[in-house]
Amino acid sequence: MADEGKLQLIPLGGLGEIGKNMMAVKYGDSIVVIDAGLIFPEDEMLGIDVVIPDITYLLENKKLVKGIILTHGHEDHIGALPYILKELNVPVWGTRLTLGLLERKLKESGISEKNVRLNQAKPRDTLSVGPFKVELFRVSHSIADAVGLAIHTPIGTLVHTGDFKLDQTPVDNDVTDFAKLAELGEQGVLVLMSDSTNVERPGYTMSERRVGHTFDEIFREAQERIIVASFASNIHRIQQIITTAHNYSRKVAIVGRSMLNVVSVASDLGYLDVPEGIIVELDEINRLPKSKAVIISTGSQGEPMSALTRMAKSEHKGIEIVPGDTVVISATPIPGNEKMVARTVDHLFKQGAEVIHEAVSGIHVSGHASQEELKMMLNLVRPKFFVPVHGEYRMLVKHSKLAAELGVDPENIFVAENGQILEFTQKRGRIAGRVPSGRVLVDGLGVGDVGNIVLRDRKQLSQDGILIVVVTLNKENGQVAAGPDIVSRGFVYVRESEELLDEAKIRVTQALEKCCGGKTSDWSTIKSSIRDTLGKFLFEKTHRRPMILPIIMEI
Amino acid sequence: MADEGKLQLIPLGGLGEIGKNMMAVKYGDSIVVIDAGLIFPEDEMLGIDVVIPDITYLLENKKLVKGIILTHGHEDHIGALPYILKELNVPVWGTRLTLGLLERKLKESGISEKNVRLNQAKPRDTLSVGPFKVELFRVSHSIADAVGLAIHTPIGTLVHTGDFKLDQTPVDNDVTDFAKLAELGEQGVLVLMSDSTNVERPGYTMSERRVGHTFDEIFREAQERIIVASFASNIHRIQQIITTAHNYSRKVAIVGRSMLNVVSVASDLGYLDVPEGIIVELDEINRLPKSKAVIISTGSQGEPMSALTRMAKSEHKGIEIVPGDTVVISATPIPGNEKMVARTVDHLFKQGAEVIHEAVSGIHVSGHASQEELKMMLNLVRPKFFVPVHGEYRMLVKHSKLAAELGVDPENIFVAENGQILEFTQKRGRIAGRVPSGRVLVDGLGVGDVGNIVLRDRKQLSQDGILIVVVTLNKENGQVAAGPDIVSRGFVYVRESEELLDEAKIRVTQALEKCCGGKTSDWSTIKSSIRDTLGKFLFEKTHRRPMILPIIMEI
Repeated sequence: MADEGKLQLIPLGGLGEIGKNMMAVKYGDSIVVIDAGLIFPEDEMLGIDVVIPDITYLLENKKLVKGIILTHGHEDHIGALPYILKELNVPVWGTRLTLGLLERKLKESGISEKNVRLNQAKPRDTLSVGPFKVELFRVSHSIADAVGLAIHTPIGTLVHTGDFKLDQTPVDNDVTDFAKLAELGEQGVLVLMSDSTNVERPGYTMSERRVGHTFDEIFREAQERIIVASFASNIHRIQQIITTAHNYSRKVAIVGRSMLNVVSVASDLGYLDVPEGIIVELDEINRLPKSKAVIISTGSQGEPMSALTRMAKSEHKGIEIVPGDTVVISATPIPGNEKMVARTVDHLFKQGAEVIHEAVSGIHVSGHASQEELKMMLNLVRPKFFVPVHGEYRMLVKHSKLAAELGVDPENIFVAENGQILEFTQKRGRIAGRVPSGRVLVDGLGVGDVGNIVLRDRKQLSQDGILIVVVTLNKENGQVAAGPDIVSRGFVYVRESEELLDEAKIRVTQALEKCCGGKTSDWSTIKSSIRDTLGKFLFEKTHRRPMILPIIMEI
Repeated sequence: MADEGKLQLIPLGGLGEIGKNMMAVKYGDSIVVIDAGLIFPEDEMLGIDVVIPDITYLLENKKLVKGIILTHGHEDHIGALPYILKELNVPVWGTRLTLGLLERKLKESGISEKNVRLNQAKPRDTLSVGPFKVELFRVSHSIADAVGLAIHTPIGTLVHTGDFKLDQTPVDNDVTDFAKLAELGEQGVLVLMSDSTNVERPGYTMSERRVGHTFDEIFREAQERIIVASFASNIHRIQQIITTAHNYSRKVAIVGRSMLNVVSVASDLGYLDVPEGIIVELDEINRLPKSKAVIISTGSQGEPMSALTRMAKSEHKGIEIVPGDTVVISATPIPGNEKMVARTVDHLFKQGAEVIHEAVSGIHVSGHASQEELKMMLNLVRPKFFVPVHGEYRMLVKHSKLAAELGVDPENIFVAENGQILEFTQKRGRIAGRVPSGRVLVDGLGVGDVGNIVLRDRKQLSQDGILIVVVTLNKENGQVAAGPDIVSRGFVYVRESEELLDEAKIRVTQALEKCCGGKTSDWSTIKSSIRDTLGKFLFEKTHRRPMILPIIMEI
């Protein structure tokens, strides 16, 4: 076989972006895939729910794909599976919590458990997947039960860090498996793929435990109710809130759908240590003295429909913010969400709450390694080849410079793009081609059916609305039988624009007379005449360019 | 008169928001207005160009308004004037640069100089405006020629800081007028209104001169071309780039419309010290060795159409980014622009440029006072009453706490909202009512004609598009004469959805038969039947909710 003795890495997502992580590893006739995540749509992707990787390459090589191995349960690592498993039914491996979260997602998407093959694995397990021996090793991250992967192939070992930080005092005491990384490094690693998310931050990322100390200070000071918003998936964070509540003899209520989901899965699987009776229903919390109440909520990103946002706007059925409340936003805004978070904070302030957010250090720590930790990873693993992953382009560049500083041969470092084929022998790496890759837009039930044309139309509709001109023509003589009628939406406030629209109608009639007088019965000529006439007229009057849609009927 | 002896402050913009600053000051039968700014639209204000204050109150009291006094030439202080002066033709006072920038804006809006009364003033001038004596005093800010105002009224003096920082080493050596502020404080100030933009930042804001040192380091290191993007209005910044270029014997080209505008106005008025021959045309820069070239550009916010963004995407006609270029983004992203800036940086990296941005300290400093400077202002002016202005709600709250810590009686501090009437006697202040206030949306030539209904339609159109159903009915028997025809935009990709749309047509036909068979000739019944039937069908098939627009014609 042509590929024998060569190893290929084909990133299908997560390079040049933060999100939709997915990496295919090919050796001989076998492919194993690491993660299958989603990314949230850019602002200009109007109406799109989520974006997933293009897996054309995997579908074209369906028979070669031996399975998908998950590093952890965040959306940007598992979120594409409900869509992908429908087309590519292969076995999936993951740790217990990761699979617990995935199962719930699949259920919500209406995928029956019978049709998927989920295989539980734990750190230090070695899986046989085709010709690959895949070893899982513990890493710390902002979700429990995260792992990195060592993939042993006939020509050498690949290490993929997954998302990681080197937390020396993690909340669950499950420290990153330094020993395994050192051992792999000693034995020799061919390629390291390492998380670049925080490569722009110097120093070390603070320990999750630091947030626990901050919670302790806040709980000590607060006289009345405490409301903490955080990422639902950050189980360590939720653990620390519950533990601190317990220390201060407070009860806890959980609000927000995703928070309820995650707490339920994590408790069932034993990832949360919840003292007996501490978690109560919301109406019980509301009956307790405020000094005994803690609420854990979604909405740390100011998401419009989330529990915290609804509280802030006095739209939450069960919780009314009152002066005396302490609201803690235990997260930093994801780029793009800054304004929504600021607005939520403002609303909370107006309700009289004390709000502890961003500016307060120690109220949130990142789940990703900073520069010194990334260096530590490189020094432990000491790979021959280095491929920075999980990062926007500038981050990958920065990470590659870091690796070069630590002695990796610059010729052996690859800043790659999604879809590029990176091919390695034991001696040499090169870019060996390209496979289809990109983003598949999900809108409702449609996966990939919304493309540039639909988005362009939505963009125009969103800016200046639409103006529809309907006219019924007589088939025999081409004369107007009814209309023209003009209907507009999102263009002007109709009740105050009657004059403008009446005038527009006159212009259309004139255009029609001109056409039909000249015996033009070619519809496309009539339509473009209407479009031109109206477009010019409306721009002159309003400086707006609504979509103009002529519809002709014939009797 | 009822109001005699009472002073009213009526904020019409800038409270609870960063932008569209406007404050009316009323005493007896006279109103003087401070600033008239715009704000850029929120994400959900689809298609809106800019937002200006609602001046209903001023229009209702047209005869009382003696004039508008401008503190400086930023858009959030002068940007509403092209709209407002059309309805409220009153005299305007401002410093030379402020009026220079305003004149250009008015010209672009087609407002003739003859129809406006612009009056130039300089720091330490005292203007007589109705019963008010308005004294201008120098403040430092991120634009040249900025002032604060001391408004002397029969019952006491108001001080309005405008936007300010206390730069001890400003580039133009025009230090904030500490002596005047101290003198005013000694004489007694009734009300202080002070800029709250940076109240969340501890310490002092760095001097603009610090950026000059950073430029010096960057210019010393750079071997080839240097491209600096900044805010066009930051004349001190532009001065420092030109000075540094001169020190390193480089020539400078200016690109981007607003940058060219501001440099031309500022040079003409003597606010820029430009060594002979240093500024050259772009094609001359392109002929010089790269080591001799500097380009000053717009686009520091990653604005889609700006010069820097076009360079980053290889779409700029005159400038191609090449490896070796050093691009400096001398600004921080305004909240909401983070992603656009990051994308621009990524594109520049891909073109091979070295990009110096955000992360590098000293590449940008703010134009607004941090906490220690705000305290200094309070301690100099020592007002009886304090009204924090220019800030989101939480910032106003924070600023009010700062004032209380420094000894202002908490009862004399007012965290107000736009539209509230703050009424002061020499002894007491209170909220005395409310005037109409809010935001007026500007879309093309329309000022205020786009409201909630139009925005709601644009929102729906942007998310799931539109589906138009046209049918021509026979007037006599209510039978279908033509159609139903279905046209959609922004909903699905039509070419791949023929089956869906055919099926939709069948559903409409069935609904029509049901209606018309039952002799329903009431159009609204027919329309809502079509909407219900189709809405349900399409949601079931796609989980999308396009706008459904039935149009019935009659022959």
